[in-house]
Amino acid sequence: MNPDLHTWATDLSDLYAQVWARLVRGVRDRRAPTRHPTLATVTPDGKPQARTVVLRAADKPTGILDIHTDLESSKVADLRATPFGALHVWDEAAHLQMRLEATVTVLTGSDVAALWAGVPDASRQSYGSLPAPGQPIAQALDYAKQPDAASFAVLRLTVQTLDALHLGAHHRRARFDRDADWAGTWLAP
Amino acid sequence: MNPDLHTWATDLSDLYAQVWARLVRGVRDRRAPTRHPTLATVTPDGKPQARTVVLRAADKPTGILDIHTDLESSKVADLRATPFGALHVWDEAAHLQMRLEATVTVLTGSDVAALWAGVPDASRQSYGSLPAPGQPIAQALDYAKQPDAASFAVLRLTVQTLDALHLGAHHRRARFDRDADWAGTWLAP
Repeated sequence: MNPDLHTWATDLSDLYAQVWARLVRGVRDRRAPTRHPTLATVTPDGKPQARTVVLRAADKPTGILDIHTDLESSKVADLRATPFGALHVWDEAAHLQMRLEATVTVLTGSDVAALWAGVPDASRQSYGSLPAPGQPIAQALDYAKQPDAASFAVLRLTVQTLDALHLGAHHRRARFDRDADWAGTWLAP
Repeated sequence: MNPDLHTWATDLSDLYAQVWARLVRGVRDRRAPTRHPTLATVTPDGKPQARTVVLRAADKPTGILDIHTDLESSKVADLRATPFGALHVWDEAAHLQMRLEATVTVLTGSDVAALWAGVPDASRQSYGSLPAPGQPIAQALDYAKQPDAASFAVLRLTVQTLDALHLGAHHRRARFDRDADWAGTWLAP
Protein backbone atom coordinates (compact mmCIF):
# COMPACT_ATOMS: atom_id res chain seq x y z
CA MET A 1 0.00 0.00 0.00
CA ASN A 2 1.21 3.50 -0.79
CA PRO A 3 2.22 4.98 2.58
CA ASP A 4 1.12 8.41 1.37
CA LEU A 5 -2.44 7.13 1.61
CA HIS A 6 -2.01 6.75 5.37
CA THR A 7 -3.70 10.04 6.17
CA TRP A 8 -3.91 9.01 9.83
CA ALA A 9 -0.16 9.68 10.03
CA THR A 10 -0.68 13.39 9.42
CA ASP A 11 -2.71 14.12 12.55
CA LEU A 12 -1.52 13.58 16.13
CA SER A 13 -4.76 12.22 17.54
CA ASP A 14 -5.38 10.00 14.51
CA LEU A 15 -1.86 8.63 14.80
CA TYR A 16 -2.32 7.89 18.49
CA ALA A 17 -5.62 6.13 17.80
CA GLN A 18 -4.02 4.14 14.99
CA VAL A 19 -1.28 2.79 17.25
CA TRP A 20 -3.77 1.68 19.88
CA ALA A 21 -6.10 0.15 17.29
CA ARG A 22 -3.18 -1.95 16.07
CA LEU A 23 -2.16 -2.94 19.60
CA VAL A 24 -5.73 -4.03 20.39
CA ARG A 25 -5.88 -5.98 17.14
CA GLY A 26 -2.68 -7.82 18.06
CA VAL A 27 -4.34 -9.39 21.08
CA ARG A 28 -6.87 -11.27 18.95
CA ASP A 29 -5.21 -11.50 15.51
CA ARG A 30 -2.29 -13.93 15.31
CA ARG A 31 -1.20 -12.42 12.00
CA ALA A 32 -0.97 -8.81 13.21
CA PRO A 33 2.62 -7.59 13.74
CA THR A 34 1.48 -6.24 17.12
CA ARG A 35 0.77 -9.84 18.16
CA HIS A 36 4.51 -10.42 18.64
CA PRO A 37 6.32 -7.32 19.88
CA THR A 38 9.92 -7.31 20.99
CA LEU A 39 10.36 -6.60 24.69
CA ALA A 40 13.62 -4.99 25.78
CA THR A 41 14.74 -5.07 29.39
CA VAL A 42 17.88 -4.36 31.40
CA THR A 43 19.70 -7.30 32.99
CA PRO A 44 20.71 -7.21 36.67
CA ASP A 45 24.25 -6.35 35.51
CA GLY A 46 23.00 -3.39 33.49
CA LYS A 47 23.03 -4.74 29.94
CA PRO A 48 20.24 -4.67 27.37
CA GLN A 49 18.25 -7.75 26.40
CA ALA A 50 15.43 -8.25 23.89
CA ARG A 51 13.12 -11.12 22.96
CA THR A 52 9.84 -11.76 21.19
CA VAL A 53 6.76 -11.82 23.42
CA VAL A 54 3.05 -12.36 22.83
CA LEU A 55 0.67 -9.49 23.49
CA ARG A 56 -2.19 -10.82 25.63
CA ALA A 57 -4.12 -7.66 26.56
CA ALA A 58 -4.18 -4.04 25.43
CA ASP A 59 -6.41 -1.39 26.97
CA LYS A 60 -6.32 2.09 25.51
CA PRO A 61 -8.30 3.91 28.26
CA THR A 62 -5.82 2.87 30.96
CA GLY A 63 -2.77 2.53 28.71
CA ILE A 64 -2.03 -0.95 30.04
CA LEU A 65 -0.69 -4.03 28.23
CA ASP A 66 -0.30 -7.62 29.46
CA ILE A 67 2.29 -10.22 28.53
CA HIS A 68 2.34 -13.76 29.93
CA THR A 69 5.61 -15.45 30.82
CA ASP A 70 7.27 -18.29 32.68
CA LEU A 71 8.18 -17.01 36.12
CA GLU A 72 11.63 -18.59 35.77
CA SER A 73 12.46 -16.77 32.51
CA SER A 74 15.31 -14.28 32.62
CA LYS A 75 13.06 -11.37 31.73
CA VAL A 76 11.36 -11.71 35.12
CA ALA A 77 14.73 -11.42 36.86
CA ASP A 78 15.53 -8.42 34.66
CA LEU A 79 12.25 -6.70 35.51
CA ARG A 80 12.61 -7.35 39.23
CA ALA A 81 15.96 -5.55 39.11
CA THR A 82 14.84 -2.77 36.72
CA PRO A 83 11.04 -2.49 36.47
CA PHE A 84 11.01 -0.84 33.06
CA GLY A 85 10.34 -2.36 29.67
CA ALA A 86 10.54 -1.03 26.12
CA LEU A 87 8.17 -2.61 23.64
CA HIS A 88 8.93 -2.41 19.93
CA VAL A 89 6.84 -3.27 16.87
CA TRP A 90 7.55 -2.68 13.20
CA ASP A 91 4.33 -2.89 11.19
CA GLU A 92 5.38 -3.31 7.58
CA ALA A 93 1.94 -2.77 5.99
CA ALA A 94 1.41 0.44 7.96
CA HIS A 95 5.01 1.63 7.45
CA LEU A 96 4.84 2.27 11.17
CA GLN A 97 7.34 1.76 13.97
CA MET A 98 5.82 1.76 17.46
CA ARG A 99 8.03 2.17 20.52
CA LEU A 100 6.50 2.11 23.98
CA GLU A 101 8.20 2.74 27.31
CA ALA A 102 6.45 1.21 30.29
CA THR A 103 6.78 0.55 33.97
CA VAL A 104 6.30 -3.15 34.57
CA THR A 105 4.79 -5.07 37.46
CA VAL A 106 5.29 -8.84 37.73
CA LEU A 107 2.05 -10.46 38.88
CA THR A 108 1.99 -14.03 40.20
CA GLY A 109 0.03 -16.52 42.31
CA SER A 110 -3.40 -15.47 43.47
CA ASP A 111 -3.15 -12.20 41.54
CA VAL A 112 -3.19 -14.15 38.29
CA ALA A 113 -5.35 -17.16 39.23
CA ALA A 114 -8.30 -15.87 37.23
CA LEU A 115 -6.12 -15.28 34.16
CA TRP A 116 -4.52 -18.74 34.50
CA ALA A 117 -7.99 -20.29 34.54
CA GLY A 118 -8.51 -18.73 31.11
CA VAL A 119 -5.30 -20.08 29.56
CA PRO A 120 -6.10 -23.01 27.19
CA ASP A 121 -4.48 -26.36 27.99
CA ALA A 122 -2.24 -26.24 24.92
CA SER A 123 -0.94 -22.80 25.87
CA ARG A 124 -0.22 -23.89 29.45
CA GLN A 125 2.75 -25.83 28.03
CA SER A 126 4.55 -22.48 27.93
CA TYR A 127 4.57 -22.09 31.70
CA GLY A 128 6.65 -24.51 33.71
CA SER A 129 9.56 -26.56 32.43
CA LEU A 130 12.29 -28.72 33.88
CA PRO A 131 14.97 -27.50 33.83
CA ALA A 132 13.94 -23.83 33.80
CA PRO A 133 14.14 -21.85 30.54
CA GLY A 134 17.72 -20.89 29.67
CA GLN A 135 19.40 -23.66 31.70
CA PRO A 136 22.06 -25.72 29.89
CA ILE A 137 21.08 -29.25 28.86
CA ALA A 138 23.17 -32.04 27.31
CA GLN A 139 20.91 -32.69 24.32
CA ALA A 140 18.45 -30.40 22.57
CA LEU A 141 15.35 -32.16 23.84
CA ASP A 142 16.51 -32.90 27.40
CA TYR A 143 13.67 -30.92 28.92
CA ALA A 144 10.11 -31.54 29.93
CA LYS A 145 7.17 -29.17 29.92
CA GLN A 146 5.31 -29.33 33.20
CA PRO A 147 2.42 -26.88 33.09
CA ASP A 148 2.15 -25.30 36.50
CA ALA A 149 0.12 -22.36 37.76
CA ALA A 150 3.02 -21.52 40.07
CA SER A 151 5.22 -20.84 37.01
CA PHE A 152 2.69 -18.50 35.40
CA ALA A 153 3.42 -14.79 35.60
CA VAL A 154 1.80 -11.75 34.02
CA LEU A 155 3.91 -8.76 33.08
CA ARG A 156 1.63 -5.76 33.41
CA LEU A 157 2.99 -2.85 31.40
CA THR A 158 1.79 0.62 32.30
CA VAL A 159 2.71 2.60 29.22
CA GLN A 160 4.46 5.88 30.03
CA THR A 161 5.44 7.08 26.55
CA LEU A 162 4.58 6.05 23.03
CA ASP A 163 6.79 6.97 20.08
CA ALA A 164 5.33 6.48 16.59
CA LEU A 165 7.39 6.79 13.40
CA HIS A 166 5.67 6.64 10.02
CA LEU A 167 7.85 6.15 6.96
CA GLY A 168 6.39 7.79 3.87
CA ALA A 169 7.60 10.14 1.16
CA HIS A 170 8.12 12.39 4.17
CA HIS A 171 8.74 10.66 7.47
CA ARG A 172 6.62 11.70 10.45
CA ARG A 173 7.37 11.00 14.09
CA ALA A 174 5.44 11.83 17.24
CA ARG A 175 5.70 11.15 20.93
CA PHE A 176 2.82 10.81 23.37
CA ASP A 177 3.25 10.98 27.16
CA ARG A 178 1.05 9.74 29.97
CA ASP A 179 2.21 12.76 32.00
CA ALA A 180 0.73 15.05 29.34
CA ASP A 181 -2.51 13.05 29.19
CA TRP A 182 -1.33 11.59 25.87
CA ALA A 183 -1.26 14.94 24.10
CA GLY A 184 1.22 14.37 21.31
CA THR A 185 4.27 16.25 20.14
CA TRP A 186 5.82 16.00 16.68
CA LEU A 187 9.50 15.10 16.70
CA ALA A 188 12.16 15.37 14.03
CA PRO A 189 12.39 11.84 12.65
CA MET B 1 7.28 -24.38 5.38
CA ASN B 2 7.08 -27.21 7.88
CA PRO B 3 9.55 -26.30 10.63
CA ASP B 4 10.27 -30.01 11.18
CA LEU B 5 12.07 -29.94 7.83
CA HIS B 6 14.63 -27.52 9.29
CA THR B 7 17.18 -30.22 10.01
CA TRP B 8 19.82 -27.54 10.59
CA ALA B 9 18.10 -26.82 13.90
CA THR B 10 19.03 -30.25 15.26
CA ASP B 11 22.81 -29.79 15.17
CA LEU B 12 24.75 -27.13 17.04
CA SER B 13 27.23 -26.28 14.32
CA ASP B 14 24.56 -26.29 11.60
CA LEU B 15 22.40 -24.00 13.71
CA TYR B 16 25.28 -21.60 14.26
CA ALA B 17 26.07 -21.56 10.53
CA GLN B 18 22.40 -20.98 9.73
CA VAL B 19 22.21 -17.89 11.92
CA TRP B 20 25.30 -16.37 10.32
CA ALA B 21 24.13 -17.23 6.81
CA ARG B 22 20.93 -15.34 7.55
CA LEU B 23 22.79 -12.37 9.03
CA VAL B 24 25.06 -12.16 5.97
CA ARG B 25 22.03 -12.40 3.68
CA GLY B 26 20.40 -9.47 5.52
CA VAL B 27 23.20 -7.13 4.45
CA ARG B 28 22.38 -7.50 0.76
CA ASP B 29 18.73 -8.66 0.72
CA ARG B 30 16.20 -5.95 1.62
CA ARG B 31 13.51 -8.57 2.10
CA ALA B 32 15.40 -10.72 4.60
CA PRO B 33 14.19 -10.33 8.21
CA THR B 34 17.83 -9.98 9.23
CA ARG B 35 17.95 -6.79 7.15
CA HIS B 36 16.06 -4.95 9.89
CA PRO B 37 16.94 -6.20 13.37
CA THR B 38 15.79 -4.53 16.55
CA LEU B 39 18.62 -2.99 18.55
CA ALA B 40 18.12 -2.70 22.31
CA THR B 41 20.26 -0.38 24.39
CA VAL B 42 20.28 1.06 27.90
CA THR B 43 19.59 4.78 28.29
CA PRO B 44 21.89 6.96 30.42
CA ASP B 45 19.28 6.75 33.20
CA GLY B 46 19.32 2.95 33.10
CA LYS B 47 16.14 2.16 31.16
CA PRO B 48 15.76 -0.11 28.16
CA GLN B 49 15.19 1.22 24.64
CA ALA B 50 14.66 -0.56 21.32
CA ARG B 51 14.36 0.50 17.70
CA THR B 52 14.64 -0.89 14.18
CA VAL B 53 18.06 -0.61 12.56
CA VAL B 54 19.51 -1.63 9.22
CA LEU B 55 22.24 -4.26 9.13
CA ARG B 56 25.07 -2.96 6.94
CA ALA B 57 27.83 -5.53 7.46
CA ALA B 58 28.09 -9.02 8.93
CA ASP B 59 31.32 -10.98 9.15
CA LYS B 60 31.21 -14.50 10.55
CA PRO B 61 34.98 -15.07 10.95
CA THR B 62 35.35 -12.07 13.25
CA GLY B 63 31.80 -12.06 14.66
CA ILE B 64 31.38 -8.38 13.85
CA LEU B 65 28.29 -6.50 12.63
CA ASP B 66 27.94 -2.88 11.47
CA ILE B 67 24.99 -0.53 11.75
CA HIS B 68 24.97 3.03 10.42
CA THR B 69 23.32 5.83 12.35
CA ASP B 70 22.98 9.58 12.78
CA LEU B 71 25.52 10.64 15.37
CA GLU B 72 22.82 12.75 17.07
CA SER B 73 20.41 9.85 17.55
CA SER B 74 19.65 8.80 21.10
CA LYS B 75 21.12 5.33 20.58
CA VAL B 76 24.57 6.88 20.29
CA ALA B 77 24.11 8.59 23.65
CA ASP B 78 22.87 5.29 25.08
CA LEU B 79 25.89 3.39 23.77
CA ARG B 80 28.35 5.96 25.00
CA ALA B 81 26.93 5.50 28.50
CA THR B 82 26.57 1.70 28.26
CA PRO B 83 28.58 0.18 25.39
CA PHE B 84 26.44 -2.93 25.04
CA GLY B 85 23.74 -3.71 22.53
CA ALA B 86 21.30 -6.59 22.15
CA LEU B 87 20.23 -7.38 18.61
CA HIS B 88 17.00 -9.26 18.01
CA VAL B 89 15.55 -10.82 14.85
CA TRP B 90 12.50 -13.03 14.43
CA ASP B 91 12.67 -14.89 11.13
CA GLU B 92 9.17 -16.15 10.45
CA ALA B 93 10.02 -18.44 7.51
CA ALA B 94 12.81 -20.11 9.49
CA HIS B 95 10.77 -20.23 12.73
CA LEU B 96 13.93 -18.84 14.23
CA GLN B 97 14.56 -16.20 16.88
CA MET B 98 18.09 -14.80 16.93
CA ARG B 99 19.35 -12.86 19.93
CA LEU B 100 22.85 -11.43 19.93
CA GLU B 101 24.67 -9.66 22.74
CA ALA B 102 27.47 -7.39 21.64
CA THR B 103 29.94 -4.84 22.84
CA VAL B 104 29.56 -1.72 20.72
CA THR B 105 32.06 0.86 19.55
CA VAL B 106 30.85 4.15 18.04
CA LEU B 107 33.05 5.06 15.08
CA THR B 108 33.03 8.58 13.59
CA GLY B 109 35.00 11.07 11.52
CA SER B 110 38.12 9.83 9.81
CA ASP B 111 37.48 6.30 11.07
CA VAL B 112 34.40 6.10 8.86
CA ALA B 113 35.40 8.33 5.94
CA ALA B 114 35.90 5.34 3.63
CA LEU B 115 32.49 3.91 4.56
CA TRP B 116 30.82 7.33 4.09
CA ALA B 117 32.32 7.52 0.59
CA GLY B 118 30.41 4.33 -0.21
CA VAL B 119 27.02 5.56 1.03
CA PRO B 120 24.77 6.39 -1.95
CA ASP B 121 23.47 9.94 -2.19
CA ALA B 122 19.89 8.91 -1.48
CA SER B 123 20.93 7.09 1.68
CA ARG B 124 22.96 10.04 2.90
CA GLN B 125 19.64 11.74 3.68
CA SER B 126 19.56 9.59 6.80
CA TYR B 127 22.60 11.26 8.33
CA GLY B 128 22.24 14.88 9.36
CA SER B 129 19.00 16.71 10.09
CA LEU B 130 17.94 19.99 11.56
CA PRO B 131 16.77 19.82 14.26
CA ALA B 132 18.44 16.59 15.39
CA PRO B 133 16.42 13.36 15.46
CA GLY B 134 14.02 13.23 18.40
CA GLN B 135 13.83 16.99 18.94
CA PRO B 136 10.32 18.47 19.30
CA ILE B 137 8.99 20.42 16.31
CA ALA B 138 5.79 22.45 15.90
CA GLN B 139 4.54 20.70 12.78
CA ALA B 140 5.25 17.21 11.47
CA LEU B 141 7.43 18.36 8.57
CA ASP B 142 9.32 21.17 10.33
CA TYR B 143 12.66 19.55 9.72
CA ALA B 144 15.26 19.49 6.99
CA LYS B 145 17.61 16.72 5.98
CA GLN B 146 21.14 18.01 5.62
CA PRO B 147 23.41 15.14 4.62
CA ASP B 148 26.66 15.60 6.47
CA ALA B 149 29.66 13.31 6.89
CA ALA B 150 30.09 14.75 10.39
CA SER B 151 26.71 13.26 11.36
CA PHE B 152 27.57 9.79 10.10
CA ALA B 153 28.44 7.18 12.70
CA VAL B 154 29.04 3.46 12.49
CA LEU B 155 28.05 1.22 15.37
CA ARG B 156 30.48 -1.69 15.32
CA LEU B 157 29.05 -4.64 17.21
CA THR B 158 31.47 -7.28 18.42
CA VAL B 159 29.16 -10.19 19.10
CA GLN B 160 29.81 -11.86 22.48
CA THR B 161 26.93 -14.33 22.65
CA LEU B 162 24.39 -15.65 20.19
CA ASP B 163 21.15 -17.26 21.37
CA ALA B 164 19.11 -19.15 18.76
CA LEU B 165 15.60 -20.47 19.39
CA HIS B 166 13.91 -22.66 16.79
CA LEU B 167 10.19 -23.22 17.15
CA GLY B 168 9.09 -26.61 15.81
CA ALA B 169 7.03 -29.53 17.03
CA HIS B 170 9.76 -29.56 19.69
CA HIS B 171 11.46 -26.26 20.40
CA ARG B 172 15.24 -26.16 20.37
CA ARG B 173 17.43 -23.46 21.84
CA ALA B 174 21.17 -23.01 21.90
CA ARG B 175 23.69 -20.47 23.02
CA PHE B 176 27.07 -19.77 21.47
CA ASP B 177 29.80 -17.75 23.23
CA ARG B 178 32.83 -15.98 21.86
CA ASP B 179 34.66 -16.93 25.08
CA ALA B 180 34.12 -20.60 24.21
CA ASP B 181 35.23 -20.09 20.59
CA TRP B 182 31.56 -20.32 19.56
CA ALA B 183 31.16 -23.88 20.77
CA GLY B 184 27.44 -24.15 21.39
CA THR B 185 25.40 -25.35 24.34
CA TRP B 186 21.80 -26.52 24.21
CA LEU B 187 19.50 -24.66 26.56
CA ALA B 188 16.04 -25.48 27.82
CA PRO B 189 13.77 -23.34 25.65
